[in-house]
Amino acid sequence: MNIKSQLQHKIDLKTKPTGALGQLEQIALQIGSIQNSLTPELKSPAMLVFAGDHGLADAGVSPYPKEVTWQMVMNFCAGGAAINVFCKQNGISLKVVDAGVDFYFPKELPVVDCKVAMGTKNMLEEPAMTPEQCREAMNHGAELVKAEAAAGSNVIGFGEMGIGNTSASSLLMHRFLNLPVEQCTGRGTGMVGDQLDYKISVLKKVAEKYNPQTVEETLATFGGLEIAMMTGAILEAKKQSMVILVDGFITTAATLTAIQFDGSVRDNCIFCHASEEQGHQLILKHLEAQPVLSMGMRLGEGSGAAVAYPVIKSAVTFLNEMSSFEDAGVSNKE
Amino acid sequence: MNIKSQLQHKIDLKTKPTGALGQLEQIALQIGSIQNSLTPELKSPAMLVFAGDHGLADAGVSPYPKEVTWQMVMNFCAGGAAINVFCKQNGISLKVVDAGVDFYFPKELPVVDCKVAMGTKNMLEEPAMTPEQCREAMNHGAELVKAEAAAGSNVIGFGEMGIGNTSASSLLMHRFLNLPVEQCTGRGTGMVGDQLDYKISVLKKVAEKYNPQTVEETLATFGGLEIAMMTGAILEAKKQSMVILVDGFITTAATLTAIQFDGSVRDNCIFCHASEEQGHQLILKHLEAQPVLSMGMRLGEGSGAAVAYPVIKSAVTFLNEMSSFEDAGVSNKE
Repeated sequence: MNIKSQLQHKIDLKTKPTGALGQLEQIALQIGSIQNSLTPELKSPAMLVFAGDHGLADAGVSPYPKEVTWQMVMNFCAGGAAINVFCKQNGISLKVVDAGVDFYFPKELPVVDCKVAMGTKNMLEEPAMTPEQCREAMNHGAELVKAEAAAGSNVIGFGEMGIGNTSASSLLMHRFLNLPVEQCTGRGTGMVGDQLDYKISVLKKVAEKYNPQTVEETLATFGGLEIAMMTGAILEAKKQSMVILVDGFITTAATLTAIQFDGSVRDNCIFCHASEEQGHQLILKHLEAQPVLSMGMRLGEGSGAAVAYPVIKSAVTFLNEMSSFEDAGVSNKE
Repeated sequence: MNIKSQLQHKIDLKTKPTGALGQLEQIALQIGSIQNSLTPELKSPAMLVFAGDHGLADAGVSPYPKEVTWQMVMNFCAGGAAINVFCKQNGISLKVVDAGVDFYFPKELPVVDCKVAMGTKNMLEEPAMTPEQCREAMNHGAELVKAEAAAGSNVIGFGEMGIGNTSASSLLMHRFLNLPVEQCTGRGTGMVGDQLDYKISVLKKVAEKYNPQTVEETLATFGGLEIAMMTGAILEAKKQSMVILVDGFITTAATLTAIQFDGSVRDNCIFCHASEEQGHQLILKHLEAQPVLSMGMRLGEGSGAAVAYPVIKSAVTFLNEMSSFEDAGVSNKE
């Protein structure tokens, strides 16, 4: 029997009606398959939060001012953001990475310095990144994940902070899934009514301006430094056979990008929650992904992944710790 | 400002877009309201699992033999069931209560002895319980919860084990919601095809046989000893201002029963998951309940509540630990 069949057999012999743990059974099967083990373990869960600024924010695609990106990084450093408190609650180590924030952080702060530039360019004028910047960001992401794996982590989540990054994500999604910009564009942190129409009109202009041919060129044109770094990180996490905890819209757009590079990335991804952000559910549908949580969250930072983590852990818990019918002396179905 | 407005204000000033934590914000609001506190705490989470046998099981309404009830209680005692491993994972204390199992447990086992009878009567022949048995079961449930509250717990979940207890739950739901038996009846632990048709035909016969007038009479006629004990427990948990973690179909049927006695019980209930069992989602809809998890679980035992607990805890975590915009020096919306 291959590992999947062996895992399914083990799951079916647990003291419960067949299939009664629902999606937890599928997650157990997936994690066991990733680790090629009947007794998989989740070790040293890690969360990397990538921050970057977006030139397009100058066009007013977010209701929040651009400086919120660096201010929120300071908030991460002080431990006061959602991602801090959820990681702390669930025993997840957290690193905050400056992928390209338009601010110089004091050296004494616990920010991992991978700054590629002071933000992306305004896509209304030129591509977000040069090919070199995009490549550099991806390489940084890969190196960071290598270090986490070397330190003993086998499960990793990714988060982001970047005013304007739902716009970049919508454009990547529009290109990779070949869907109209309107369907890919949502309220982000809170664009309503006319503001949303305006955001769509800006993104349409950008989408029409460029015609990138390769995946890497598309990422460089429409992405963000934090999104490119996350894409490189996800690709490396797959190489390291890690369980990948996918958060909301932006992380899922980076995952979609990584999947364009390497389709097998999908096998390692657990989609932690369905965001309220329009577009997210469309990508999930395209990837045939069943999210763990559907709680109407739309915060980013990796927060959905951090909240979902103990539920994912429950899948490994039952697989390793529950008794079988035989062990427990319980009668099976008649 | 009343406590709800004060809580909403506190939630809205956290460093996140308004409403971006979705359902977690509603749960934070609910728990703060229950505790009448801007800094609510979840203390000593407890899970009581009530076990009881059902006379109707003799009519073949479950694919599992009746002795699985006591065998599973033994499995709970040995620590090998789903509810054991999930409670252990999430720091929830677990007590297993014999409400009316058709078996004498050895005294050295950690089973709380509240045995009212050796199971209910076969409802095809006579009411499940006498009024006295029903009342005794409810009283036991209340006493057990009082003891948990006295020991410092302010959040409590309830689980159950009883071959045949989806049938009792379907009948209670049929009566209290005035819905046809077919809509209230599902596969339980695994009735398929003709077996399900047969289960429905049995429940219809039972439903037509009796016409109880009061809530208590209805519970005595169609319920189970574990369901009656859970109903008493839920009513007491409300009196003790505890957060009530509602699990799947059977627990929700007990909650529905408790709500018939005292409508204010609803305010303290967090509906932890949407079971695959037909009927559960109908009750949730009737109660306007938004479940925390929708993972296709249908195991009972309190397992859905135990898995959902850390997610519920995240609501309290963010309310107490996240910074406000002002504290963090982050700019709010323009």
